[in-house]
Amino acid sequence: MFSGGRMYLFRIPEGEEFVSYMHEFLKKEGIETGIVNAIGTLKNPKVGYFLEEDERYKIIELKGTYEIASLLGNVSLKDWKPFLHAHVVLGDSEGNAFGGHLLEGEVLVAEVFVLELKGKRLERNVIEKGLTLWPIEE
Amino acid sequence: MFSGGRMYLFRIPEGEEFVSYMHEFLKKEGIETGIVNAIGTLKNPKVGYFLEEDERYKIIELKGTYEIASLLGNVSLKDWKPFLHAHVVLGDSEGNAFGGHLLEGEVLVAEVFVLELKGKRLERNVIEKGLTLWPIEE
Amino acid sequence: MFSGGRMYLFRIPEGEEFVSYMHEFLKKEGIETGIVNAIGTLKNPKVGYFLEEDERYKIIELKGTYEIASLLGNVSLKDWKPFLHAHVVLGDSEGNAFGGHLLEGEVLVAEVFVLELKGKRLERNVIEKGLTLWPIEE
Repeated sequence: MFSGGRMYLFRIPEGEEFVSYMHEFLKKEGIETGIVNAIGTLKNPKVGYFLEEDERYKIIELKGTYEIASLLGNVSLKDWKPFLHAHVVLGDSEGNAFGGHLLEGEVLVAEVFVLELKGKRLERNVIEKGLTLWPIEE
Repeated sequence: MFSGGRMYLFRIPEGEEFVSYMHEFLKKEGIETGIVNAIGTLKNPKVGYFLEEDERYKIIELKGTYEIASLLGNVSLKDWKPFLHAHVVLGDSEGNAFGGHLLEGEVLVAEVFVLELKGKRLERNVIEKGLTLWPIEE
Repeated sequence: MFSGGRMYLFRIPEGEEFVSYMHEFLKKEGIETGIVNAIGTLKNPKVGYFLEEDERYKIIELKGTYEIASLLGNVSLKDWKPFLHAHVVLGDSEGNAFGGHLLEGEVLVAEVFVLELKGKRLERNVIEKGLTLWPIEE
């Protein structure tokens, strides 16, 4: 169980790579646990689809500019650093939607909400099928 | 109006059915009102599309494994029990997205955030077109 | 940085236009900053796709009834009034998903969560490529 900590609502500058910018932000602010959501527009995003048999992500490279119709993510510790796990839904110029695990994307506009969670350490330290997961709570 | 209560960020074990697991969780924790979001991967999810004329959901059965690109839901009381109403966006192996009302899905991975809301009783006690809805506030 | 303010979870009456209803709600409640999410069903939604070269939104008109598979938004000040910026993912009767910037949509059902953020003034006062954006923080 957690309680609510700091809250942020801000824009990522144009040209930044979304995931690496967020990792810098989380590290700078010292946010180890939390949730993230965002809307905006990304260029040339790459999303992952998990291949259970192969125990790896298939990388889907989308070319061009897409609306971030939704981005939901969480923050926890991985290798002692704050780690963002985010999934996205992206809309193209016809409105068609694509979705998966966000690997990277160049920001045209990104409006991001972060809610810090406080209370206990949440760590990705369980390896299953190539994924680094949280322990299951009893 | 509500104020924020307990917050949770956890993983549902592989093999569980998402909706019934969450109902057990909410009942066990005594969470009657709140919001839920999640990301992860589901197998053989079923989503509903509301048919207004027929006053029922059409069931769309998706076969295989899908990324939970987004899951947004809320918790309120229905028949005196905590009830999760959740919608999902699911991504297939090509990144194509599908969306609707979540009926069920087997968890491969599900990372879930729950925020309890405290303050008043929110109950699904209005039947309109076959849907069980909250009363409209003045 | 913000702290959490009032929280709301409510249903918008059938027949209302989503965006204008929310603007009335935010004004009435005096909510200047916050986040919004929603699920439900919309009729004849219009979504925008940002055309960077043209510095304007292309309008995509969807005919018929769509599940709101996801709606994520934020609230800040624009022209001294609370302004909702929301993106949606919409599901059709086959489960196919469409996404983009929400311009308008008629509510069949909309269950909305609002979290007020308190602490500082967040204002859309930067014009870039025809978009009205928040200043970048240092």
